[in-house]
Amino acid sequence: MKKNVIVAQSGGPSPVINASLQGVIEACAAYPDQIDRVYGGWHGIEGILLEELVDLSAQPKEEIALLRTTPAAGAIGTCRYKLKDEQTEDYERIIEVMRAHNVGYFFYIGGNDSMDTAAKVSKLAKERGLELIVTGVPKTIDNDLGDEEFTIIDHTPGYGSAARYWAYLMQNVNEENRGMCVSEPVSVLQAMGRKSGFIPAAARLADPQREMPLQLYFAESGHTLESLAENVNRQLQQSGRCIVVVSEGFDVGNLGEARDGFGHIEYGASQNTVAQVVVNYLNSVGLKARGQATGQVPGVLQRSVSIFASCVDIDEAYQVGQHAVDIAFKHGTGWMATILRKPGETYQSYFSHVPLEIVANSARHLPASWISPDRLDVTDDFIRYARPLIGDGWPDIALENGFQRFARLSVSFIEKKRPVYLPIRFR
Amino acid sequence: MKKNVIVAQSGGPSPVINASLQGVIEACAAYPDQIDRVYGGWHGIEGILLEELVDLSAQPKEEIALLRTTPAAGAIGTCRYKLKDEQTEDYERIIEVMRAHNVGYFFYIGGNDSMDTAAKVSKLAKERGLELIVTGVPKTIDNDLGDEEFTIIDHTPGYGSAARYWAYLMQNVNEENRGMCVSEPVSVLQAMGRKSGFIPAAARLADPQREMPLQLYFAESGHTLESLAENVNRQLQQSGRCIVVVSEGFDVGNLGEARDGFGHIEYGASQNTVAQVVVNYLNSVGLKARGQATGQVPGVLQRSVSIFASCVDIDEAYQVGQHAVDIAFKHGTGWMATILRKPGETYQSYFSHVPLEIVANSARHLPASWISPDRLDVTDDFIRYARPLIGDGWPDIALENGFQRFARLSVSFIEKKRPVYLPIRFR
Repeated sequence: MKKNVIVAQSGGPSPVINASLQGVIEACAAYPDQIDRVYGGWHGIEGILLEELVDLSAQPKEEIALLRTTPAAGAIGTCRYKLKDEQTEDYERIIEVMRAHNVGYFFYIGGNDSMDTAAKVSKLAKERGLELIVTGVPKTIDNDLGDEEFTIIDHTPGYGSAARYWAYLMQNVNEENRGMCVSEPVSVLQAMGRKSGFIPAAARLADPQREMPLQLYFAESGHTLESLAENVNRQLQQSGRCIVVVSEGFDVGNLGEARDGFGHIEYGASQNTVAQVVVNYLNSVGLKARGQATGQVPGVLQRSVSIFASCVDIDEAYQVGQHAVDIAFKHGTGWMATILRKPGETYQSYFSHVPLEIVANSARHLPASWISPDRLDVTDDFIRYARPLIGDGWPDIALENGFQRFARLSVSFIEKKRPVYLPIRFR
Repeated sequence: MKKNVIVAQSGGPSPVINASLQGVIEACAAYPDQIDRVYGGWHGIEGILLEELVDLSAQPKEEIALLRTTPAAGAIGTCRYKLKDEQTEDYERIIEVMRAHNVGYFFYIGGNDSMDTAAKVSKLAKERGLELIVTGVPKTIDNDLGDEEFTIIDHTPGYGSAARYWAYLMQNVNEENRGMCVSEPVSVLQAMGRKSGFIPAAARLADPQREMPLQLYFAESGHTLESLAENVNRQLQQSGRCIVVVSEGFDVGNLGEARDGFGHIEYGASQNTVAQVVVNYLNSVGLKARGQATGQVPGVLQRSVSIFASCVDIDEAYQVGQHAVDIAFKHGTGWMATILRKPGETYQSYFSHVPLEIVANSARHLPASWISPDRLDVTDDFIRYARPLIGDGWPDIALENGFQRFARLSVSFIEKKRPVYLPIRFR
């Protein structure tokens, strides 16, 4: 008997998360004897809990194809709804909805929390006698899945595009900073990645020869506002200017109370971004130079601007989505599709699969060996690792009437079959 | 006798300021009997005062051609050095340096302050018996030159690219906000333009049909944090999400002390951006919705990212530079090259010239009649005005080894002929 598919997204988006979605949808079409309809969870697991399912099989093929270069998660939505172990009612509701809609395959696109949820759904389905194959599709711009030996996953889809955003941006900021340095000698930019420095590290890809006066401040760096100011002043003496890329997770010490209100849970009227704390510190006490520091906080732009998507990342995100469907059929439930790298000088990736539980319990930092001794830079090993991931050149973003043409899916929910349910965290 | 040229840039850069520089340089080549060398003031007027001049005639033609798509002012630099009337020593020094280097033509690329300086240099040269033709080239992303009848200048080179940045960005942010709205329903973005709302207004170009839940807060809007929060909550009830584009000049009232430290003169440890004040206000007291507001401050990125340059703006910036050279020869000293618009449905611009003094004393706001009655939007008249300026599609940015290939000029100063001079503001 044919089964239906549910695919859902989780957590912050990336410029290529829709490419993985497209990969799943199009690969399902290769199994017409096994698969009937492909449904999308509207805003991820929330849509499954609320029984808000979008019929993706009913969308025009051209719109599905446009998902390839449609950034972020506006097509079917994502959420930050976390499923803790004790939310047994929520878990049972997922099984109930899957059963009601004859779902035999569940593809979950997300990071380690999502793989944890996926593993638990897979296990519970077995216990409840529901034939459900659960398969993970990796996604995160932070590149913080897996291990520091890169054996679980070499890099996550999404990271290559965030890295390309920073690499290309640095080239433009270098022109800006060089041109304006007699009045604005310090450009401070805040990069995402609360715990892991892979994103700010990518700024260096713009300048492997170290010609730019660029300093990177990782969450892991151990630098302080005081040492940052010392480093910046030294750079100003040497170059007359300085570009500072600071992780949103950088420790601003005493000023921490006033730290980073952008995009996170705790706020107050005095909350401040790390970039602003750095700018304020430099401008009030730290800067021994004529002129001012300026601050830039791209925020969600680094995960949602399509033109900075990496062509390599787009391709791999699509293929890892396809591969997830194949391993669902080949290997059954409980796996995440993964991207690994062949040894050798020339970059070549390949796809494989790893148990969901292993990913769920993994967390990766920028390896300490890839941070330079002064903790202001990365090593060439990092550059060799990351350079191939950003690709070469611009992706081909479709245009219409002079504007970007993104996928437009028709969002009407399929008929509900179960009583109304209020997810635990909404109560 | 042949004369030399000095060209210099002033104030904040734009993605197309180098295109005007290229226009000046290449147009000078059409006057081989009148012009010997073209020098660039290194970091604008500072370079002239310090006698730091770059020989632009000695640069490879290919590099000059690459200026077309090289953003910001890294090629020959710019500055914010202001020349007030009483700085007579500085003015005399400019004449001295011009005379020493046999300069007969001075092209000054900048905004109204620069046109004021240019007018005064022109006048003083006459008084001192120096044959010097001074010609202005307009530049500013703010579009705040001229009058609200658009008779002095229709739009400034640079504005079309800043407008395109915001228009294209909104499309991406709309995908981001729609995808993440169940946990981050409000995206706040801060736009440049301290006094004039043309830049935030451009966000609406992405959505002339008003389908996005987009609210614009101009410096001129008269809204407060409280009314902003009311508007946002109303939008959330209606759409479940809201995109807020707020001018850096938006009045945040009581919280003003903690306002905008990015890129401007006065700082303290508690300085904050307008975007952050809005985010903090919404998240601490203002937001009657599940989820958080996130803040984005693109800062200098909106004036320095090449891929968002408007093709129309690039062409016009180049041509207005060329035109400046032509009017210098046709009309003598004391004019600024300007861009005007032919009447009619189809956009057509043409070039003309206006007296420097008229521009120097001009200042333009977003016309009140182009702000919608609720002061959260622009009218269709604004859209008809601004839409042609952003062009259609992507500019052709040269690539090399997968990265953007920007112009690389050889910066070595020509031989100095005058004693060392310390500009007044450096003393």
